[in-house]
Amino acid sequence: MLAATILEPGRVEPREHPDPVPGAGEVLVRVHAAGLNRADISQVAGAYPPTPGAPSDIPGLELAGTVEQTGPGASRFVPGERVMTILGGGGQAELATVHERLLMPVPRDLDWAAAGGFPEVFTTAHDALFTQCALGPGERLLVHGAAGGVGTAAVQLGALTGAEVFATVRDPALRAAVTELGARVLAPEEFAAAAPFDVILELVGAPNLASNLAALAMRGRIAVIGVGAGASAELDLRALMGKRATIRGSMMRHRALEEKALAARALELHVLPALASGALRVPIAATFPLQDVAAAYARFEAGGKLGKVVLTFA
Amino acid sequence: MLAATILEPGRVEPREHPDPVPGAGEVLVRVHAAGLNRADISQVAGAYPPTPGAPSDIPGLELAGTVEQTGPGASRFVPGERVMTILGGGGQAELATVHERLLMPVPRDLDWAAAGGFPEVFTTAHDALFTQCALGPGERLLVHGAAGGVGTAAVQLGALTGAEVFATVRDPALRAAVTELGARVLAPEEFAAAAPFDVILELVGAPNLASNLAALAMRGRIAVIGVGAGASAELDLRALMGKRATIRGSMMRHRALEEKALAARALELHVLPALASGALRVPIAATFPLQDVAAAYARFEAGGKLGKVVLTFA
Repeated sequence: MLAATILEPGRVEPREHPDPVPGAGEVLVRVHAAGLNRADISQVAGAYPPTPGAPSDIPGLELAGTVEQTGPGASRFVPGERVMTILGGGGQAELATVHERLLMPVPRDLDWAAAGGFPEVFTTAHDALFTQCALGPGERLLVHGAAGGVGTAAVQLGALTGAEVFATVRDPALRAAVTELGARVLAPEEFAAAAPFDVILELVGAPNLASNLAALAMRGRIAVIGVGAGASAELDLRALMGKRATIRGSMMRHRALEEKALAARALELHVLPALASGALRVPIAATFPLQDVAAAYARFEAGGKLGKVVLTFA
Repeated sequence: MLAATILEPGRVEPREHPDPVPGAGEVLVRVHAAGLNRADISQVAGAYPPTPGAPSDIPGLELAGTVEQTGPGASRFVPGERVMTILGGGGQAELATVHERLLMPVPRDLDWAAAGGFPEVFTTAHDALFTQCALGPGERLLVHGAAGGVGTAAVQLGALTGAEVFATVRDPALRAAVTELGARVLAPEEFAAAAPFDVILELVGAPNLASNLAALAMRGRIAVIGVGAGASAELDLRALMGKRATIRGSMMRHRALEEKALAARALELHVLPALASGALRVPIAATFPLQDVAAAYARFEAGGKLGKVVLTFA
């Protein structure tokens, strides 16, 4: 099979690999689309070790495709069914093996690019907003860095749940599109005026910490899942106490199989119906065929995009 | 009635006040004992405004006594019953009114000093460890500043729940007594060697934040409920993400009646049986009659004590 392959730090190209074989409980998936994520960029740059057990030189934390073959004991799907999933690595390849408990069915009317860009960012956003922060209807949600993959997912999930959604978007050219997803969009320097917020999803990093805490409602929760703009900041513990506030850090990688499987069940129950009906969508900034994987990574790194960059497979 | 009275910042003495009258749903309690807490010290010093609705010049966030009279609609207790409670202020007086939903029964064999020093610190510790941090059996708990009121409560509650309890105590003279309460006691500079900890209860403040995060287990929780040694510290958000850690600030004051009542029900269910059996105890550093209230406050501020300072009433 062909797969996106890390040849040396900073260089990713298609290369031939032996076809993977599904083990007990696993499914072999013929991949039709596989989204790029920030962690792939770091891994290709050599700054992020691959998850133990995943191929060391094939990036890819999500995929969508058809079931090609089932391993011993795997019984949830049959060959030909459309599935999508997060995985520990190796998703950007023509074939990949995944434990069957991680797989979700692809809604009938969803195209491959959207299915391939759905799992990682919607799982991450859903886990952060609901499993970690218990966001509920009527609450005020602020998403920092809302034009990216996780941001566009979080804005839509918040709106769908009946929260009042605010978002900061640095690039003025992307603000109208995020508004259409259901957020009141603010420039980064003006969010404090819209306080208080019950939940703040931090996708930018440390520079926001002090103003996040100042803008938080009583018993508010801050989920930190991106620190691209910096990781270290002063924290005022007295303010944290006074607001009875919570700050959580979270990431999807290095989670146990059973925890990732539970996240997949939560998405099947709470998110797939809205994805199937069209109430939720997966904004796609660009798709690239596997041959152009280097260009896909360059596009991701260039920024200034709304939503996902996705690799497609013939 | 006589009550501890703040005459000017830093000066507290007994003074006569009109007897309070119980309103709807309230109980008038004849106070036998009332513990001192850190927030009382701050209030007497003029650094902490009284809770809205509480007497502005009478401190006291907890009390134990007998029911003297019930207000309209109050039906949980009858005159003569022994009760104890947290309250928004005014507890250090011969008489106090409290909503009946806040009251807990005093176990038969518990003496008045222990009952008067129990509610605030055990409610605070129980709320932080269990309601906020979901401490469970088998987990490793670290209590920073364990010789004080909340610390001695937290060590015992952790041990009672089947957690493995570690504690830092600054004063070497108090370490043996905290060991007897069920903790492995460490000097503040040596706790990192005993990592990892699933839950850390921070009663000291900001200087511990970085080393707390470094010593935290995956998915660990830090509860900050005391910042006497400093409130501001650098936080490494990348470490927070990598450990999927949670930092929570909390305080008891300014909570709604229903939330304080729920905390009282949780204590009745989970803590009073162990208090009644003698498995839990309320360490008392010193008791003072109301006439000597100024000496009681001076004793609290002097530090170097194990457990509570409690005012007693004839």
